[in-house]
This record gives sequence, structure tokens and C-alpha cells, in this order.
Amino acid sequence: MELRKKVSPAVVKRLPRYYRYLGDLLKMDITRISSKELSVRMGITASQIRQDLNCFGGFGQQGYGYNVELLYNEIGDILGVNYRFKFIIIGAGNMGQALANYANFEKRGYELIGIFDVNPKVVGTKIRDIEVMHTDLLEKFVGENRVDIAILSTPYTQTPAVAEKIVELGIKGLWNFSAMDLKLTKDVVVENVHLSDSLMVLGYNLKEKFLTE
Amino acid sequence: MELRKKVSPAVVKRLPRYYRYLGDLLKMDITRISSKELSVRMGITASQIRQDLNCFGGFGQQGYGYNVELLYNEIGDILGVNYRFKFIIIGAGNMGQALANYANFEKRGYELIGIFDVNPKVVGTKIRDIEVMHTDLLEKFVGENRVDIAILSTPYTQTPAVAEKIVELGIKGLWNFSAMDLKLTKDVVVENVHLSDSLMVLGYNLKEKFLTE
Repeated sequence: MELRKKVSPAVVKRLPRYYRYLGDLLKMDITRISSKELSVRMGITASQIRQDLNCFGGFGQQGYGYNVELLYNEIGDILGVNYRFKFIIIGAGNMGQALANYANFEKRGYELIGIFDVNPKVVGTKIRDIEVMHTDLLEKFVGENRVDIAILSTPYTQTPAVAEKIVELGIKGLWNFSAMDLKLTKDVVVENVHLSDSLMVLGYNLKEKFLTE
Repeated sequence: MELRKKVSPAVVKRLPRYYRYLGDLLKMDITRISSKELSVRMGITASQIRQDLNCFGGFGQQGYGYNVELLYNEIGDILGVNYRFKFIIIGAGNMGQALANYANFEKRGYELIGIFDVNPKVVGTKIRDIEVMHTDLLEKFVGENRVDIAILSTPYTQTPAVAEKIVELGIKGLWNFSAMDLKLTKDVVVENVHLSDSLMVLGYNLKEKFLTE
């Protein structure tokens, strides 16, 4: 367990990708794989893979490679898929609804237990059998249910107030889609998602590769 | 122009973030800023900022700091916001619809010109005044319109065939939300988006910080 504490943020960022690829291998009934083969599939170097996976004590064996299922389960365990994190969505606009319908989260061990909005047109409607509640009911809901993570998909202007409320209610994880960066504090861990950033990186690469003489 | 070619992928990944923060400063009528002040706002070190921005010839002046508007425009130019990239969305499910409704892309210089799906319930409906077309019409559409980027929000199983079609039609940019990694080739630049990965990083940090004794 001591070793795990040393995992660097850069390695942590790559773990979900290992987890995905290993899951795909399992589906294909591939039971073991060398770092070289995995490297070809994932498009990263074999030495990077060995270095990353050594952080957890090294599951590979010389001449055998990695036991896919063992590694998959171990990385899943490190990532916390067995915690059955419970999350809510605040802001049931287009992005909130898209996220609510994203079944992949469940496969990763995340369970959606509530959706909140202030828009009277949306409150009371159902998304995947979950009735959208008015945000006024958030405090009551959090009092009665364990909520690990709140997804923020509110409009930009509402973000600070909602984020403050979330922290005040003791929710410890914040997944933020609201276009405004929120900072990690001692009370909460945050992941900010900026979809436009990814699109702009694509645009840059497109320009550099194909549009610039 | 020579200098720009040397921008590393790591720096490119940070540019959209600089662009956002500088845009926010402009909105607040802040006309100049030191790397130190910017560092506090952005939560990265001042030396990192200076190093990043020096890649483009360095816009800062000792004792003055950065001219916000100049830097904003320059980074925008580097990122290609003036190219008016035209994009289409293939797959008008929840994620496709959320992306179609994401107005931020337009602010960054990206214009949505077409939406495609195969589902008869969706084809013919309108999203932001754009009628969803059947994917069979894709080839004709690309023949008649300049399409820089295709957003893939198709179900997993359809992804390989649709991606192949896109490359065959000569579209050079692929923004992939389809849960299956696609690889960059000489014919196309790709950004793969895996929302679950970001959630799992959050889950890991949550676990490490609050749930593990």
C-alpha cells in the first residue's frame, strides 16, 4: 500500500487508459500480453508502460508479460472502481443530459443517483428513470443520501454559487463542465473539463499539418 | 514563423487554457499582467508561464509584464481561431446533441455546418436550425462543402466504418467521442476524448484524499 501513495499525477492520468485497453483485451479473451504488444496497441513506448506499471510493484514477469485480468483488476482497484462512487448532476441542460445518459460511467463503477436543475420546464421530467429535482432540494437530498461526486454542468454565471453550496454540503468530489475553472482546496477534489480546449488542440494540429505551407 | 514549428505538444495542450484566461482578463478590462499574477490566477508557476510563452518569441517585457490583448490575439492566431474551421457532427445521440448545442465552439472560431445520423427518429429533426441529415448524404455534403473537422459521436461498433469513410472523403480532422481510440495517420489528425478517464482520475484523487486511511 505504501508504494501506491507515490503514484505521480502524470501516471494517474494514464491509468484509466490502461484500464480501458486491458478491458478490451479481456473481452477478446486475451489473457496475457507483453509490454511490447501493449505498446503497439496503445501507441506509447514499451519502456513507458513498464515504468508506469512498476509504480505499483510491477505485475509483469520476464518472458511471460502481464497477466491481463490481474492487471485489469489491480488498476481498477487502484482507481477505485469498487468504491461504487455515487454521483449527482447539477444542471440538466444539454451537457447534463448527455452525461446522465452516458452509460459508460456505470461500467466504471459510478452510479448516478440524482439530477438537479432550476428550470421549471426540466424539473419533474425523467432522465433514465431519474426525476429531475429542483436545486432547492439539494440540501435535503445530500442529507439523506451519500453523495461522493457532483457533476457541475450549470451555466457559467451560476457556477461559483453552486460550487460553494456543494462544498458547504460536504461533497468531496467535483467534476466541473461549467467552462469556469474551479480550484482544488483542502475540502474538495476537482477535475475541470474544457471540451473546447481539446477541439482547439485539434485545430492547431490540423493547421500545422495541413493548412500551413 | 520558424519558431512556431517548435512548439511541443505539451505546450500546445496548455495554449487553449492561456487563451481562456486571457479572454477573461480582457472581459475584465485588464490590459496588462505579470507572469506572477497570471501564475496565481491559473495555478501554475510563473516560470512555467514564461517558458511556455517564450516558445513564441516572448511577448513579455521586463517590468511591464504581458500586454493581455496582444498575447490573446497572438495565441488565438497560433491556435487558428481565424481559420473559421467548419465542422460536422456524425451521430446525433445525446452526446452529439450536447456538442451541437455547445455555443462555446463558435466563440473559438469553429462553425457547425452539418449533423448526420442514421436513426429515422432523429433524421429530419432540427438542432439549432440545422436539419439532421441521413449519413448516406455525407459524401454528397462533403463534395459540396468544405469540411475541416468531423466530430464522431457514433456508437462504439459503428466507429471504425465511419472513421474510414471520413478519411476516404478527405476530412483531415477527427474529434472522437466514440469511446474507441482512433490513431493519427498521415491523412488525418485525431483528438480522442474519453470523458470516463477524467471521471476516474477524479475518483482516484477522491479515494486517495478522503477515503483511504
